Amino acid sequence: MTQSTGEFALIDNYFKDLTGQSGVVVGIGDDAAVIAADALSQMAVATDTLVESVHFPQWAEAKQIATRALCVNLSDMAAMGAEPKWFTLALTLPVETASDAWLRGFSAGLAQIAAQHNIALIGGDTTAGPLTISITLLGELPKGRGLYRNGAKSGDMIYVSGTLGDGAAALEGLVTNPQGVLGQNKRLLEHFYCPVPQLELGLGLCDFASACIDISDGLVADLGHLCEASQVSAQIYSQQLPIHPELKQLSKQQYLQWALSGGDDYQLCFTLPEAQQRAFEGWAASNKIPVTAIGKMVPLDHNQNYIRVDNQSVSVITGGYNHFGQ
Amino acid sequence: MTQSTGEFALIDNYFKDLTGQSGVVVGIGDDAAVIAADALSQMAVATDTLVESVHFPQWAEAKQIATRALCVNLSDMAAMGAEPKWFTLALTLPVETASDAWLRGFSAGLAQIAAQHNIALIGGDTTAGPLTISITLLGELPKGRGLYRNGAKSGDMIYVSGTLGDGAAALEGLVTNPQGVLGQNKRLLEHFYCPVPQLELGLGLCDFASACIDISDGLVADLGHLCEASQVSAQIYSQQLPIHPELKQLSKQQYLQWALSGGDDYQLCFTLPEAQQRAFEGWAASNKIPVTAIGKMVPLDHNQNYIRVDNQSVSVITGGYNHFGQ
Repeated sequence: MTQSTGEFALIDNYFKDLTGQSGVVVGIGDDAAVIAADALSQMAVATDTLVESVHFPQWAEAKQIATRALCVNLSDMAAMGAEPKWFTLALTLPVETASDAWLRGFSAGLAQIAAQHNIALIGGDTTAGPLTISITLLGELPKGRGLYRNGAKSGDMIYVSGTLGDGAAALEGLVTNPQGVLGQNKRLLEHFYCPVPQLELGLGLCDFASACIDISDGLVADLGHLCEASQVSAQIYSQQLPIHPELKQLSKQQYLQWALSGGDDYQLCFTLPEAQQRAFEGWAASNKIPVTAIGKMVPLDHNQNYIRVDNQSVSVITGGYNHFGQ
Repeated sequence: MTQSTGEFALIDNYFKDLTGQSGVVVGIGDDAAVIAADALSQMAVATDTLVESVHFPQWAEAKQIATRALCVNLSDMAAMGAEPKWFTLALTLPVETASDAWLRGFSAGLAQIAAQHNIALIGGDTTAGPLTISITLLGELPKGRGLYRNGAKSGDMIYVSGTLGDGAAALEGLVTNPQGVLGQNKRLLEHFYCPVPQLELGLGLCDFASACIDISDGLVADLGHLCEASQVSAQIYSQQLPIHPELKQLSKQQYLQWALSGGDDYQLCFTLPEAQQRAFEGWAASNKIPVTAIGKMVPLDHNQNYIRVDNQSVSVITGGYNHFGQ
């Protein structure tokens, strides 16, 4: 980390509480952090960027931006079956935004999520410029473990965690009608700004799953990536998709569209051999992790259609882009 | 890495050549990269962000932006005595900038520097938004080695590599008079867009140095950080500062100001016990690495003045900020 005097003070003032975790040989305050882990054999590394008016609205509070940024990144660790340990923060923010209150709120958001998951901020860079948050997470992944996109086989069952469509419903509430039913729904707002990374599930899945991905762009898009990497096709059934009762009060067309291609759900989508079904569902139940079987993997069809929903092929629809753009 | 379909194609198209190095178990194309290194005991991690109009001018070419971004980050690895191995890229760019030509140029710049230093791109995230490049570098650092800011002792000699003031001179040329002598100076332009990270020196210094920092904000500012971390004061002598003959043609006041507080030099500033002088200078000479002794460490004075130049105390002046701002 190359820090100007101003940045030095800024990081010292606002982010120092975030650095005291195990494995940090040198944290904030040198040119780079140095980390060590006992018996470390592999490390998972993921980078995600959040941009104002693209990934969060201009009116989002500093704390909300911070929790969302870190949770979204942690979801990538969950999808790898890795245990998150350390992160770096590249924070670009306009001079007029960099108030004490804003920085305290942002730091509090990071601290909340970091404490929940026992991860340490080990370095970063703050610069003046348009509000952009880029986080790089490092996690431990013992050799021989891990979840990848390319291991699904024909015949495997397809599962998702939690409920689908909540991310899109929250976005709809935030953007089109903040005073409406969706915009005022606390569960959806919490899901948008604090999506719960499925880390416990990811770690457990290393014993069962053949492939895994997190759902950030929508089920069809992300399951499509998994199918492409594994060279199989997915058959999913819309009546099996887990939908929260609140969303079921809307039109079926609406909630299914959100569940299939809405994005921002940060649930895991994963596959496992049928022979593992019983053991896996027992493990999930005993850990109180909601999971739902939504379909099966089949051989890749001749037209390279990766996804069939209710026996109809669908083109991969990615999630909305620049949601909050002017 | 959470990739939308568009990003997936973008990274596949432009950045795939950058990923094939040793130690990469899983590179681009999953939720996170997985890395492994034999006998890995410690890892150095550094993040740096470059923002348009702050760290490079709006008219900079894509390739120039990429080489500068990566070289600046590599300089942090040099300052730690670490061997850079892997990096992630968070690239935020306006939709109108994301042309095929721009992306090819940017990718070529990364590839050039990555090949020179045998490092691999292992992941990243591309998003629409104001042009911002954030790179996180990971490097290996065997246990017990490494260069830190806090090891300098009173009596240690202070050295810098290369010549000082070139970064500020290049900036002056770029900003105030692109058609003038400085603006047309190829060596200075090359230094600005491709500052040579002092990696070989950093690795070697692990055997000699008591403390080290890279000069990004200017000698006085960065040596000030080193002194603060080590709780000593530095006595430096302006006539000993290494200045390139081209800069010596300008006024002495001008080139000394640039050398002392101009920034963007990306040389190393380091300290070592006098007893090491002979062995170190012999090592540097045999490796053809130019280094210059510029002063000595003394006990911290009562007023916490960290730096004295020619026996006069100076306040720490940081490098310019928002150089290219409108």
